[in-house]
Amino acid sequence: MIQKLISGIKEKNSPIVVGLDPQLGFVPEQILNKYYNEMGYTLEAVAEAIYEYNVGIMDATYDLIPAVKPQVAMYEQFGVPGVIAFKKTVDYAHKKGLVVIGDIKRGDIGSTSGAYALGHIGEVELGGKKICPFDEDIVTVNPYLGSDGVKPFIDVCKENDRGIFVLVKTSNPSSGEFQDRVISEGDDKGRPLYEIVAEKVADWGQDSMDGDYSNVGAVVGATYPEMGVRLRKLMPKAYILVPGYGAQGGSGKDLKGFFNEDGLGAIVNSSRGIIAAYKNDKYASFGAEGYADASRAAVEDMLADIRENI
Amino acid sequence: MIQKLISGIKEKNSPIVVGLDPQLGFVPEQILNKYYNEMGYTLEAVAEAIYEYNVGIMDATYDLIPAVKPQVAMYEQFGVPGVIAFKKTVDYAHKKGLVVIGDIKRGDIGSTSGAYALGHIGEVELGGKKICPFDEDIVTVNPYLGSDGVKPFIDVCKENDRGIFVLVKTSNPSSGEFQDRVISEGDDKGRPLYEIVAEKVADWGQDSMDGDYSNVGAVVGATYPEMGVRLRKLMPKAYILVPGYGAQGGSGKDLKGFFNEDGLGAIVNSSRGIIAAYKNDKYASFGAEGYADASRAAVEDMLADIRENI
Repeated sequence: MIQKLISGIKEKNSPIVVGLDPQLGFVPEQILNKYYNEMGYTLEAVAEAIYEYNVGIMDATYDLIPAVKPQVAMYEQFGVPGVIAFKKTVDYAHKKGLVVIGDIKRGDIGSTSGAYALGHIGEVELGGKKICPFDEDIVTVNPYLGSDGVKPFIDVCKENDRGIFVLVKTSNPSSGEFQDRVISEGDDKGRPLYEIVAEKVADWGQDSMDGDYSNVGAVVGATYPEMGVRLRKLMPKAYILVPGYGAQGGSGKDLKGFFNEDGLGAIVNSSRGIIAAYKNDKYASFGAEGYADASRAAVEDMLADIRENI
Repeated sequence: MIQKLISGIKEKNSPIVVGLDPQLGFVPEQILNKYYNEMGYTLEAVAEAIYEYNVGIMDATYDLIPAVKPQVAMYEQFGVPGVIAFKKTVDYAHKKGLVVIGDIKRGDIGSTSGAYALGHIGEVELGGKKICPFDEDIVTVNPYLGSDGVKPFIDVCKENDRGIFVLVKTSNPSSGEFQDRVISEGDDKGRPLYEIVAEKVADWGQDSMDGDYSNVGAVVGATYPEMGVRLRKLMPKAYILVPGYGAQGGSGKDLKGFFNEDGLGAIVNSSRGIIAAYKNDKYASFGAEGYADASRAAVEDMLADIRENI
């Protein structure tokens, strides 16, 4: 799977992913009102609205980007109808030739992680018939439960040629509270927890190589560029998904250290900065009606920033 | 919310919760085949089957237990139809007067955790109308992202009188890989990470008290009883959700240390041991047709074991 992502990145010269995180406040009023008028103030109306909003953004940007990353929380927020919109978004992204990174941050005890893995990147077999329930290509995984909570995902990656990005160092302000704690034992003495997790990622990844890179990647926030440099070296074969660019504070000059010398090894996410670009002064002239074109302009600007700095 | 759970525990003299984790292999064949015959080998058929299976178990046990804990992974495994079955299970549990602990183990950056919190234990407001999308009473939360990933859940708990259980020390074999790492810094020198998380839980919980206990509880596995004793003391006001009883290896004699001297402070989960009891030699005489009665017998035996040991 990681080679499929890399092909897209090379073909489009675009190591970026657009985060499809449709907060209600981002969806243009004309879209929301259309569905409210049709279906009332219901979860179903919102779900249809966020799907149409996503389609607009994908239609306007798919030729510039290799992948999208829908954040499932923004869909679960709207209950079952929201989850239906998530699934429709995944399917539409595939139609546009995009790799889908499901930002689900799941992780549980072994048998339960196995169920998440089958549902999101695997297949369930019913009466000899195989069905891919959500059918993302790659998902994000939370490592707090240790190896036996991650391995079922890796097994499914191998069986179905899919991928995972494991949370190592997240982009949020308080990520250091537990992730940065310095360990006192043995060979790991003096090292922060996120490095221990990173070494596990490198270790797990050996078992699922796809060309020069592994199907087991990592999440490291753009907001922590020095840590990115160090983590890049600790996980040379892991693709790094880099959130935190744009609205969260990361910029192009912070990113070089996340990439390898081959110019590969990282993919940078922007969500709000792209999908809500029309709300930003810089792109305000597009207006709410031109939200998708504003998103395209923001992708072009982000690409210019990144190409200049890598 | 925690007082509502405590009332149920006292009223039924039952500090236990049944984990509704319907793996496909647990669902009796007569139920699966009924829906396969009606709807073919589809996710929709499986979803209807697991819902009927859950209803049978709830009907047979609701008077003995204060709460159920559906594990959302087992529903997501079957895609959108599975998520519909999850929601129907939550609603049916409420009809039977049960507190619903959604075992979702979510956790993300602040705004994203906020979306999960609204979707699962909160309300979204659409055109002035408030809607509870999934409407669980309590959910489990993963702390790996630190305070700003947990606080949005606590805010929603306060607003809507709901609760959370934060993962501290999980029941699985490799939970120690990261959770047990010993910290080398300052006042925390020499202490494992799970204790640092536990102190945060105690700290976060002060802000959402409900009587003598907090709406912010913790998850600590029955499989680690010595740690349970220590964690009980570190979080005196936190209710502890204790998974790992039964199939995972924990037994009644391991549980005393998880409770406070008031006989409260913990609720013990069993999933497979109850819902798949009919597959256990001990209850095999019930047969697949009597699966719900087997579950009731298993609950009675679990209660006897726990009452004897606490």
